[in-house]
Amino acid sequence: MIGIIMGSRSDLEVMREAVDTAKEFGVPYEVTVVSAHRTPDRMVAYAKGAAERGIKVIIAGAGGAAHLPGMVASLTTLPVIGVPIKSRNSIDGWDSLLSIVQMPAGVPVATMAVNGSRNAGLLAVQILALSDKELGHKVIEHKEKQVASVLSGIDAMKVQFPNHFDE
Amino acid sequence: MIGIIMGSRSDLEVMREAVDTAKEFGVPYEVTVVSAHRTPDRMVAYAKGAAERGIKVIIAGAGGAAHLPGMVASLTTLPVIGVPIKSRNSIDGWDSLLSIVQMPAGVPVATMAVNGSRNAGLLAVQILALSDKELGHKVIEHKEKQVASVLSGIDAMKVQFPNHFDE
Amino acid sequence: MIGIIMGSRSDLEVMREAVDTAKEFGVPYEVTVVSAHRTPDRMVAYAKGAAERGIKVIIAGAGGAAHLPGMVASLTTLPVIGVPIKSRNSIDGWDSLLSIVQMPAGVPVATMAVNGSRNAGLLAVQILALSDKELGHKVIEHKEKQVASVLSGIDAMKVQFPNHFDE
Amino acid sequence: MIGIIMGSRSDLEVMREAVDTAKEFGVPYEVTVVSAHRTPDRMVAYAKGAAERGIKVIIAGAGGAAHLPGMVASLTTLPVIGVPIKSRNSIDGWDSLLSIVQMPAGVPVATMAVNGSRNAGLLAVQILALSDKELGHKVIEHKEKQVASVLSGIDAMKVQFPNHFDE
Amino acid sequence: MIGIIMGSRSDLEVMREAVDTAKEFGVPYEVTVVSAHRTPDRMVAYAKGAAERGIKVIIAGAGGAAHLPGMVASLTTLPVIGVPIKSRNSIDGWDSLLSIVQMPAGVPVATMAVNGSRNAGLLAVQILALSDKELGHKVIEHKEKQVASVLSGIDAMKVQFPNHFDE
Amino acid sequence: MIGIIMGSRSDLEVMREAVDTAKEFGVPYEVTVVSAHRTPDRMVAYAKGAAERGIKVIIAGAGGAAHLPGMVASLTTLPVIGVPIKSRNSIDGWDSLLSIVQMPAGVPVATMAVNGSRNAGLLAVQILALSDKELGHKVIEHKEKQVASVLSGIDAMKVQFPNHFDE
Amino acid sequence: MIGIIMGSRSDLEVMREAVDTAKEFGVPYEVTVVSAHRTPDRMVAYAKGAAERGIKVIIAGAGGAAHLPGMVASLTTLPVIGVPIKSRNSIDGWDSLLSIVQMPAGVPVATMAVNGSRNAGLLAVQILALSDKELGHKVIEHKEKQVASVLSGIDAMKVQFPNHFDE
Amino acid sequence: MIGIIMGSRSDLEVMREAVDTAKEFGVPYEVTVVSAHRTPDRMVAYAKGAAERGIKVIIAGAGGAAHLPGMVASLTTLPVIGVPIKSRNSIDGWDSLLSIVQMPAGVPVATMAVNGSRNAGLLAVQILALSDKELGHKVIEHKEKQVASVLSGIDAMKVQFPNHFDE
Repeated sequence: MIGIIMGSRSDLEVMREAVDTAKEFGVPYEVTVVSAHRTPDRMVAYAKGAAERGIKVIIAGAGGAAHLPGMVASLTTLPVIGVPIKSRNSIDGWDSLLSIVQMPAGVPVATMAVNGSRNAGLLAVQILALSDKELGHKVIEHKEKQVASVLSGIDAMKVQFPNHFDE
Repeated sequence: MIGIIMGSRSDLEVMREAVDTAKEFGVPYEVTVVSAHRTPDRMVAYAKGAAERGIKVIIAGAGGAAHLPGMVASLTTLPVIGVPIKSRNSIDGWDSLLSIVQMPAGVPVATMAVNGSRNAGLLAVQILALSDKELGHKVIEHKEKQVASVLSGIDAMKVQFPNHFDE
Repeated sequence: MIGIIMGSRSDLEVMREAVDTAKEFGVPYEVTVVSAHRTPDRMVAYAKGAAERGIKVIIAGAGGAAHLPGMVASLTTLPVIGVPIKSRNSIDGWDSLLSIVQMPAGVPVATMAVNGSRNAGLLAVQILALSDKELGHKVIEHKEKQVASVLSGIDAMKVQFPNHFDE
Repeated sequence: MIGIIMGSRSDLEVMREAVDTAKEFGVPYEVTVVSAHRTPDRMVAYAKGAAERGIKVIIAGAGGAAHLPGMVASLTTLPVIGVPIKSRNSIDGWDSLLSIVQMPAGVPVATMAVNGSRNAGLLAVQILALSDKELGHKVIEHKEKQVASVLSGIDAMKVQFPNHFDE
Repeated sequence: MIGIIMGSRSDLEVMREAVDTAKEFGVPYEVTVVSAHRTPDRMVAYAKGAAERGIKVIIAGAGGAAHLPGMVASLTTLPVIGVPIKSRNSIDGWDSLLSIVQMPAGVPVATMAVNGSRNAGLLAVQILALSDKELGHKVIEHKEKQVASVLSGIDAMKVQFPNHFDE
Repeated sequence: MIGIIMGSRSDLEVMREAVDTAKEFGVPYEVTVVSAHRTPDRMVAYAKGAAERGIKVIIAGAGGAAHLPGMVASLTTLPVIGVPIKSRNSIDGWDSLLSIVQMPAGVPVATMAVNGSRNAGLLAVQILALSDKELGHKVIEHKEKQVASVLSGIDAMKVQFPNHFDE
Repeated sequence: MIGIIMGSRSDLEVMREAVDTAKEFGVPYEVTVVSAHRTPDRMVAYAKGAAERGIKVIIAGAGGAAHLPGMVASLTTLPVIGVPIKSRNSIDGWDSLLSIVQMPAGVPVATMAVNGSRNAGLLAVQILALSDKELGHKVIEHKEKQVASVLSGIDAMKVQFPNHFDE
Repeated sequence: MIGIIMGSRSDLEVMREAVDTAKEFGVPYEVTVVSAHRTPDRMVAYAKGAAERGIKVIIAGAGGAAHLPGMVASLTTLPVIGVPIKSRNSIDGWDSLLSIVQMPAGVPVATMAVNGSRNAGLLAVQILALSDKELGHKVIEHKEKQVASVLSGIDAMKVQFPNHFDE
């Protein structure tokens, strides 16, 4: 199971893509709000109990001084994926990115691009696929479809630019 | 009492000035290492028990993805002063500064300059002085001495640059 | 009493939250415009007379090359809280933030997040609560309500995401 | 098996910690240089054959315009961990960090702090531990030892600062 | 022939100016989408076959962690011109710019301004003009027309600001 | 006379305030477009002839890689005031600011804030006022009016916030 | 007379070039330390009395949250030249630069490059030369000597690189 | 012939690699100092006469507010390659990079990495090779040698890390 958490309900707009990715791959998930700063006790309870509840990978999104991913990582040994969110008062996402990625030695957080929750979902699925053959096939299939979809878009461009490149 | 904490022992080089300031003003203090990421339980215990132990103001220094000041602020209603530390792997202090200062509404951290632990000590003393007349006098005196010291340094410059300015 | 000042009337849009916070906690306050650059004499008079007028904490908001918080701090021994404002010609708030937070040793300014005037109000109240038991209770209560409000918002999410986390 | 690659031999100074971590946890690993820009064919061969050769997680370190982690991620469905390296001509690590972390949707790279190769090793181990109970125990043990080591360091500080905090 | 490629179809909005420049100067061109991350094999095929297909200069535009220009440059000895694109999730173009321009020694990419596809087209034409006299005349003519157009705009200003400067 | 130049006609939107300031103080001025990059010969002619034409101070506004102020300063010994303009493709004004302010020793440019053309006008007037008593009086008067205008705005605030500060 | 001030004695290392420039051109000058934050009253006295004491141009250097140039500019109508100093705890000079250059409309500061005190001296001399013919000649002569010195250095290079360019 | 110019003699330390690259490929070159700010007339003469003197590509290196590459590009229709130099007073190379790369439409500069003069030389050679078959072979050979050299370095690593990857 993937645990998907975020610092506030307004982060759902960005984090929904992580949820949709779990759904798309048929991986069970849990979604909720856990605020490092407003509900620290809930955060401790969440992180400490995650492994026992069956969670394998945690995805945590947060904006501004984004402490949620790093703090959860300090309270569990599960892999934690962090999504920096460009929230209203963030300085263009720099604060979220740096406060998630610059973790000290001993407590890794797998950091995604600013607002990169789609990739957070995909990485979680890739990790789970290491010990789930069927999921592994789906991941490979998804990658192939991704290529196919880009290629068919490229074909559509030929009408516009006939002087095209074909492999 | 002022509680002075830092994320790792190597931060003491910078944080010592906060300790020295407390000493200089004769304010009782407590110094220790509390790591948000390596000892999260200790951090929770520290922050939750601080008020009861008689601490009035907490000074917290940390580098990189510096979560200590903000997390402590989320666990207490005491004023928390944050000192961003330019540690070895910090990106010139930007990461520490942004991950301390950009706190969300509801959980303030009084942020100092990068490596600004002297000012952290002074601000703590200024806060305590609000309800301690004697300390208040010391703070005013200190400010006057600071002016005097600058002025006497200026006097010394007159030898070098006789075309000087006197008030 | 909390003194709330700002560099120009247009800053009121951001600084109103500091005013509202003082109101919410029933703490007396004074609000006005004091421009470091356009009314320097008024600034000196304000800062030097603040303690005598009964002000305990000063909140100063300013944008661009934001000198107001630091200059006021240089003219008083009261705690000064600085709010960097992302004004129209500011470079995304970087200029305001750096010119408030990077104060030299000897003159601390408790710096908040960019546009963080809500937290400026809260920090001022936390400081005043150190010597006002009743206010102290209100601060603790406010923190509890904040948690409760987040938690009830989380409950509402369960309709949307039934696979939820309960402590 | 963990695959550890880097853009040039000079990156080994930083990447050695990832190797040491694999050793420390007794996880088999493969180390080599794969340059996205100087040996692109080798990179394609490496990435495409990795899963088949038994690699489960790839750690890729690179500096400057660091394309290695992202390109490898585009050529495999294994989880890829990226380590931005602050090399001699890097602009303080900003270039390496941004060119690793800001990957487009569809191709995640789990980005570590600048020079954060210790954490790259730990994250790889955490991922492998999801399907290896014994390794899981080692990870938990390591986390406990980490706490113990910090705490014993804290004890040593008591000589210096007797006014200490004990849980 | 100029080869114009971009990381995704949405980049065409910016890259169209490169296409228009080729048209304007009557230089044959090829336009297509080649994604380093989503179609890496196509990228390798494109870059390796470019010279043989008659391409002399490659223009490659990409956003975010923009690896396309650098990777293509690693796979060909043709001059490669890179255009950093300020895409939706880019951090104001910084990520695109740095991941294109900070190439290691051995693999140059001629980097343009953020969204500077007009200049990419012009540089390609300037390069081709080195061995094409007629094109060389067109380039000189274009430069003269550019001056003339600025000067006639300046003349129009005289109505508004009669106190003008004439050479 | 003040010479006001800008890199392109679209810069007039920002530079108009410099023109208006000259008008307001009754100082003669010349306005035109001089592009360092599109009309380099015109720029050389402008700068070399400026002193002879009676210009005392030059105000030059430019965006992006803004070379106009520095190049003009290299071609004259008149004081040159530079205005960095946040144009459409500028990276938030950083490029304009840095390429104007970071001049090498020997060739000063008096740099204003991003889009700070009002201040460019005022500085030019202050410089001219050094040798023009009447203009000097106007500058002092203007400063007093500026204070008065801020103060009257402050008075208006008293209706809203009766708990006000009076000097 | 040129007034040269700086925020602390340690700034003299950088500011000495401004002093040397005044000497070199035979312009009278006054040098002293005026700290905006440590001696605000002295700063007010300095700035308000400057014109009367015969100062025509003020050069002010400061580091970190550098308020001295802007505050002095707010207290006088003389031209003020600001020199951002990259002091020990400055964030690579960014803080000094932004807190000097980003002044609000109404209070210009002529900002130089980081540590650009040579240019501050030159600009002051250029301003004074507007109403001092002899000084004007010296400025032109200095510019010519500067060219000659570069050219003679270039001649020296011919030994090393015979394939040289001559005008 | 390649024209290699730089803003000051001290830039030769960085620019020497461009010279060495020309030598290595047996391409004739011209080296000299041309300062946009100190010798503007020389710069104009250099750029306007370059094509006639037989120069095909110009490499221009400069630091700080680096105007040389862009100004030369405005005065010629030859391809101009710009090398941002991290000089002593540069802000970590940011100023040089932005003032070279952010050129307006109409005047392209092929920008290299900070201090990237080796790549400037290679790009110039690649451009010349488009119309010089023999040089073209050398370029391809050089690329192959580059791969071989990396691969032989990799072989050497096998002693250290026997668990290696072979294609």
